[in-house]
Amino acid sequence: WPNWLPLSFRHADGDWFDLGDVEVLEFRQALDVRCGTLRRTVRFRDGRGRESALEVRRIVSMADCHQAAIEWTLTAENWSGPIEIRTALDGTVRNEGVARYRALNGWHLEPLATGCIGEDGIELSVRTNQSRLTMAQAARTRVFPAEAERERRTVEAPGWIAQIIACECRKQQPLRVEKSVAVYTSRDRAISEPVIESRSTIARDSSFAELLERHSIAWAHLWDRCDIGLGGNDNAQFVLRLHVFHLLQTTSMSTIDLDVGVPSRGLHGEAYRGHIFWDEMFIFPLLNLRIPEVTRALLMYRYRRLPEARWAARAEGYRGAMYPWQSGSNGREESQVLHLNPRSGRWVPDNTYRQRHVNATIAYNVWQYYEATGDAEFLSFYGAEMIVEIARFWASIAHHNPQRDRYEIHGVVGPDEFHTKYPGTEELGLKNNAYTNIMASWVLHCAGAALDRLGRDRRRELFEELALSDEETASWEEIGRKLFVPFHGEGIISQFEGFGDLEEFDWDGYRRKHGDIQRLDRILEAEGDTVNRYQASKQADVLMLFFLFSSAELAEVFERMGYPWTPETIPKNVQYYLHRTSHGSTLSRVVHSWVLARSDRERSWGFFERALASDVADIQGGTTAEGIHLGAMAGTVDLVQRGYTGLETRDDVLWFNPCLPEPLREVHLRIRYRGHWVDVEVTQERLRVRFDETWPRTARVGFRHEIHTVAAGETLEIALSPEC
Amino acid sequence: WPNWLPLSFRHADGDWFDLGDVEVLEFRQALDVRCGTLRRTVRFRDGRGRESALEVRRIVSMADCHQAAIEWTLTAENWSGPIEIRTALDGTVRNEGVARYRALNGWHLEPLATGCIGEDGIELSVRTNQSRLTMAQAARTRVFPAEAERERRTVEAPGWIAQIIACECRKQQPLRVEKSVAVYTSRDRAISEPVIESRSTIARDSSFAELLERHSIAWAHLWDRCDIGLGGNDNAQFVLRLHVFHLLQTTSMSTIDLDVGVPSRGLHGEAYRGHIFWDEMFIFPLLNLRIPEVTRALLMYRYRRLPEARWAARAEGYRGAMYPWQSGSNGREESQVLHLNPRSGRWVPDNTYRQRHVNATIAYNVWQYYEATGDAEFLSFYGAEMIVEIARFWASIAHHNPQRDRYEIHGVVGPDEFHTKYPGTEELGLKNNAYTNIMASWVLHCAGAALDRLGRDRRRELFEELALSDEETASWEEIGRKLFVPFHGEGIISQFEGFGDLEEFDWDGYRRKHGDIQRLDRILEAEGDTVNRYQASKQADVLMLFFLFSSAELAEVFERMGYPWTPETIPKNVQYYLHRTSHGSTLSRVVHSWVLARSDRERSWGFFERALASDVADIQGGTTAEGIHLGAMAGTVDLVQRGYTGLETRDDVLWFNPCLPEPLREVHLRIRYRGHWVDVEVTQERLRVRFDETWPRTARVGFRHEIHTVAAGETLEIALSPEC
Repeated sequence: WPNWLPLSFRHADGDWFDLGDVEVLEFRQALDVRCGTLRRTVRFRDGRGRESALEVRRIVSMADCHQAAIEWTLTAENWSGPIEIRTALDGTVRNEGVARYRALNGWHLEPLATGCIGEDGIELSVRTNQSRLTMAQAARTRVFPAEAERERRTVEAPGWIAQIIACECRKQQPLRVEKSVAVYTSRDRAISEPVIESRSTIARDSSFAELLERHSIAWAHLWDRCDIGLGGNDNAQFVLRLHVFHLLQTTSMSTIDLDVGVPSRGLHGEAYRGHIFWDEMFIFPLLNLRIPEVTRALLMYRYRRLPEARWAARAEGYRGAMYPWQSGSNGREESQVLHLNPRSGRWVPDNTYRQRHVNATIAYNVWQYYEATGDAEFLSFYGAEMIVEIARFWASIAHHNPQRDRYEIHGVVGPDEFHTKYPGTEELGLKNNAYTNIMASWVLHCAGAALDRLGRDRRRELFEELALSDEETASWEEIGRKLFVPFHGEGIISQFEGFGDLEEFDWDGYRRKHGDIQRLDRILEAEGDTVNRYQASKQADVLMLFFLFSSAELAEVFERMGYPWTPETIPKNVQYYLHRTSHGSTLSRVVHSWVLARSDRERSWGFFERALASDVADIQGGTTAEGIHLGAMAGTVDLVQRGYTGLETRDDVLWFNPCLPEPLREVHLRIRYRGHWVDVEVTQERLRVRFDETWPRTARVGFRHEIHTVAAGETLEIALSPEC
Repeated sequence: WPNWLPLSFRHADGDWFDLGDVEVLEFRQALDVRCGTLRRTVRFRDGRGRESALEVRRIVSMADCHQAAIEWTLTAENWSGPIEIRTALDGTVRNEGVARYRALNGWHLEPLATGCIGEDGIELSVRTNQSRLTMAQAARTRVFPAEAERERRTVEAPGWIAQIIACECRKQQPLRVEKSVAVYTSRDRAISEPVIESRSTIARDSSFAELLERHSIAWAHLWDRCDIGLGGNDNAQFVLRLHVFHLLQTTSMSTIDLDVGVPSRGLHGEAYRGHIFWDEMFIFPLLNLRIPEVTRALLMYRYRRLPEARWAARAEGYRGAMYPWQSGSNGREESQVLHLNPRSGRWVPDNTYRQRHVNATIAYNVWQYYEATGDAEFLSFYGAEMIVEIARFWASIAHHNPQRDRYEIHGVVGPDEFHTKYPGTEELGLKNNAYTNIMASWVLHCAGAALDRLGRDRRRELFEELALSDEETASWEEIGRKLFVPFHGEGIISQFEGFGDLEEFDWDGYRRKHGDIQRLDRILEAEGDTVNRYQASKQADVLMLFFLFSSAELAEVFERMGYPWTPETIPKNVQYYLHRTSHGSTLSRVVHSWVLARSDRERSWGFFERALASDVADIQGGTTAEGIHLGAMAGTVDLVQRGYTGLETRDDVLWFNPCLPEPLREVHLRIRYRGHWVDVEVTQERLRVRFDETWPRTARVGFRHEIHTVAAGETLEIALSPEC
């Protein structure tokens, strides 16, 4: 029973209700994702033979972002008598959701005050002990029928307050309790201070039914915008909707006006301590094309932390802005420098903070937002500055190698966290991680494109503010073209320079010995070995490129960099790395499904189904309890939205290139493209794209290599061949 | 010497420097508005014949919004010897800027902590005693040449900390002190908590020269965007720039990410206690066409307070949203209900909160922003909802009068605060204030237009969220058409119903007797009379209409409402009300200048010059010390920008209709219209409009009744006749 709506009861002669103390006759728990409501029904018999039914509905309002409510109905089936209901506000909660963190201090709230508000209200205020945010809660609890209530008394302890409501319960007559809670923090906007606002919200309080009504409408509208219809696969449809639900729980209208990022384990997961990594990259494609105001707000989260990123670059001797791999409230680096291997019990130095590629993610996300929305004002005011400062960082971290006449980036870690340095060396990081270098090249080119879109005046402003020169921007293009990409074998992109020289790993042997080898790094460390020695990846590192870019765009990037690109580049590399990955990351399956979408549709579907299961089946064996895997959830949604449809917003054209796996008969999307709604229907046989009536001019829709023009209200229909 | 950069010195044998204790040989104070720098130079001789020169430059950074800095240079002209410099942070400040508030509690800061940071830093944190915001400051003070410094010691008191720096001062050798201060509050974004952030900013501190450089670039860019060139009138140009400077000090890039409105006395004025009225209406036209991100942020300030405005409407039995006349942090009504007449010493009941017209202002501002920027996403996501909820309020406060078959609005006060009820009655407010009813009619029509622009899907969402029906929206159009407007005499719009029946006021007699009769209300109240009895206005109430709308647009509004509109309507009403206004409001002169711009250019220029003088000459005799008059400042700027040029953004057309007063030879503007820069040059002889190269399609430019199309990079030139 979550802590911010605590509500319980006891018989006058008994203990507070505990599911463990009664005989459970029936138990049903249902999360209604359509209207964001958690329902629990439990029928039970106690030691004295009293049978009761309890029905509970609870919501955290999507319409009134400061409110939550619970409706609790107790029916005495075969008894009558006095009971006591306890309705509390609890500020004594601790973070105990992750077993291996429990030895650390999980106490984050200092109690400030408790008190009563009128007859039926209680309030609590606490302060976070590091960031010193004040949070105030006020609750109002009402009993129906009102005559059932006999008396209320208040019980208080530091950081905790409750009302005990003595009620008379009559056989077969449901006793209904409505409790609503208002919560404000000192960071909220449009407030005087949190205690006053939570009190006044409760004083103006609506009934549970009214709150539920507004909440349900808000959810209905979110679904209108965000649902993705899958024909012919009920299980996938079901899980996909659960994923969309969790994405929207994490970031939606309610978070637009908060200064928040996308935490990799959602809002309720305690793993990674709420840190912000790069997961927004996976949720952006959905939100850009549905609720671009949300992605704008998420980009502003990054923009506000640009000064800190500039400082971080400067502190390391670089120019521009270097965003941290893990960050929190003030945008500084928060990555751990030691990591506990639960297998060996050893604290191991952790070097994964050197994932500078997060900077490319941020630039990529700005550009994707711009391509999807056409929001030139955002690009001009904020976006271009971020892209430029990141390009500048890449230009300064790259150094010229005169032997190769190529630029190189050393000392970094790629998305694959198994590889953090070369075996047998002390130096941290790797040389020329292919993903990093190619992304950096893309950013360096993108910065020029972004500056070109600004118009003369804003461009001049930015040049003066950032002390830019034409020479410097020209050097970015030059460095971008000449970044080094390592290859080995026949056209295999080396994950990093020297990857091909590492030992092959004995996958079969270890699988036989250990079963689950997702966390190979921990297994090897416990054995006194290191995964750095092997061609073994935790997650698809090189393959991320095929996930982020279409084949057409990658061909352009490779051409610009002067490296060969053939139709075999993708399948060959996919093949190579698929056999050298432990899938220690939930994201890995999404990427593998994606990259196989065109070459091996059956296997792609298999990876997709495994990725769908990440959290509903907790396939990592226990990590779901530590929080959902937001990136993987978002990835599965995006796999349907963009992977299987080939949807792409590039160069002012809305591209498609559908290729549905066999079990997927149909995908139906409604996307918001450049301020207007577009209906997209993909089946095995055809693609249909319809622009709404408000579309102001002809739209450009690309299918493979052709560009079609479509007018407002028109439908473009294209027949598909079965081979994609 | 303002309190957040306190810095002083003394001779080893003397008291802390006080301008009153020395013989001042030279004193010069200059505010450099071009780069936002305050400079003071003072040369003085003390009782012992020591002559010294002190030069001080101070900035509050426009580039680094958390930083301020001071550079302080002392030159011992004819002496050498030890001195002590005191550098403090002072949290004991009180609000004492307004004499008549001094009997009230002016103490708002509770001390929290003081401390040292390293060798040369001090810090202070305080908490506001009502809103419980934490504010932390950290300061770093350095002496140049460093060898001059002998010793530092720290002195502390509750809410106050200082370092005393013992220095050796050498004859003719300037001793330079740089002090920089960082300030953070608990409401800031992208922070951990204020103390940590202010410390870390100071630790990373730049030199005064570096801070000044960034600050100067930021100001240069603000001027690039916001300067208005006036040919042929240096004094007007000078004061106009001072006004633009103050507008930008109050709201600019630095305030975009704060949740702040436009306080009528700027940020440093204590009069009206920082309350938000309707002054944003006057600053919007400048910012919409220069830095629309700022107006977007100011509209978001209102949007965040929409729930409170809904509550206020509901509490009074209305529907929709009723924004308050005066408001603060949480958007509730903050108007005084008693008002002190300093003349009589009496506390008089104050009914001016019934200025419901502020709601029309907000809807009007949303629409103006949309017309200037074309920001459809803002209109869809936020703007339309505000307009609709305000329309709904107007529809519900209006009641049908079957005798007239007209809708009426009773119990309100118009912009003219002299009239708050009918003489001899108890009932509060007036019937059918013309300004209010016509604005309400405009809003009720505008709501339909806004809904039409949303597209089917968003329109449906909004209908469901707000429980709207087609019947309800149709009723708005109906009510808007049938709102009653009172007239008297021959085509005189009555300020409110019955205004024409009030007694004429003896203007000449009272002017002879009292001289300045701007605050006629106070004079009459002190005499036991009331201004409610007379046809006497504090400010142009009816005339505001001619300020907000072009004659063309008003003709449309009147036609829709079924009232006559003739070419004489404006001059006749201007004539009537000009003689019945005391100019008790600084805004009044702006409006009068505006409405005379076409009919009496000489008088218009006279009013303009008086309005320009409002604050530089403190024409109300002392109110400038209580804070600048932001609305009047903005109004003078807008008078040049829109009044004399006839610039209007309406129905997707950029309109002009220039008419410069004779002393004004030329006006040069650069405006940002729909995401692109447009150069506008108006002289007595011609109008020139040039669209920049990035303009994507042909623009529509209206001149009087004709619409011209202009392509990117083209210049439209129109010859003007001397009669306008």
